[in-house]
Amino acid sequence: MNNFKKVSIAEVARQELHDVLGLTGAEVSVNTLPAGVGVPFVHSHKQNEEIYAILDGQGTAVIDSASVSLKAGDWIRISPSAKRQFFASADTELKYLCIQVKEGSLEGYTLTDAIVL
Amino acid sequence: MNNFKKVSIAEVARQELHDVLGLTGAEVSVNTLPAGVGVPFVHSHKQNEEIYAILDGQGTAVIDSASVSLKAGDWIRISPSAKRQFFASADTELKYLCIQVKEGSLEGYTLTDAIVL
Repeated sequence: MNNFKKVSIAEVARQELHDVLGLTGAEVSVNTLPAGVGVPFVHSHKQNEEIYAILDGQGTAVIDSASVSLKAGDWIRISPSAKRQFFASADTELKYLCIQVKEGSLEGYTLTDAIVL
Repeated sequence: MNNFKKVSIAEVARQELHDVLGLTGAEVSVNTLPAGVGVPFVHSHKQNEEIYAILDGQGTAVIDSASVSLKAGDWIRISPSAKRQFFASADTELKYLCIQVKEGSLEGYTLTDAIVL
């Protein structure tokens, strides 16, 4: 395997990067919900922590019993067991990232994992 | 620990989310390099795969012996051992995410980790 791989993503409803980039520690998806549209199901996870980043637009996440407003610049960590569903607002699309990682898998990071040359 | 946590990030040069969000499977940072500026050192990693997403602007990544052009919408996976350094172009800032995850840590994902309710 080469030491890096780059792709440029297209403007599609959902682009999954795990297979395209050969990721081994995460799945990352770039998602766009049109105005007035929500993900059509509620889901939770077995092992994976999810990290959501709102890139553009506005919407709402329903997480267990909470209704959480969403706008560009918001980041959310969600535990595996939480029941979640994301919705774009009635009048703007919602563009967001979803990062799936195995809960508890990170050991060192930044200063404790980097080698500065 | 609550089942989720949300933050809204500020417009700063570097915002690290691990501690703020209580992440356990990744470190995520949101970074902005001003026009003409680069990260002032080359680095590699011991264990962590890095995933970079270019959010805005243009620049260049030097990864081992390769010079890789960067623009919004580009995503790059970099192996732990690769030597890397990121630069904004001379006339535009470069805004990017960096996701650190332990290489090989992901087991199931999406259909093999989700529970649809």
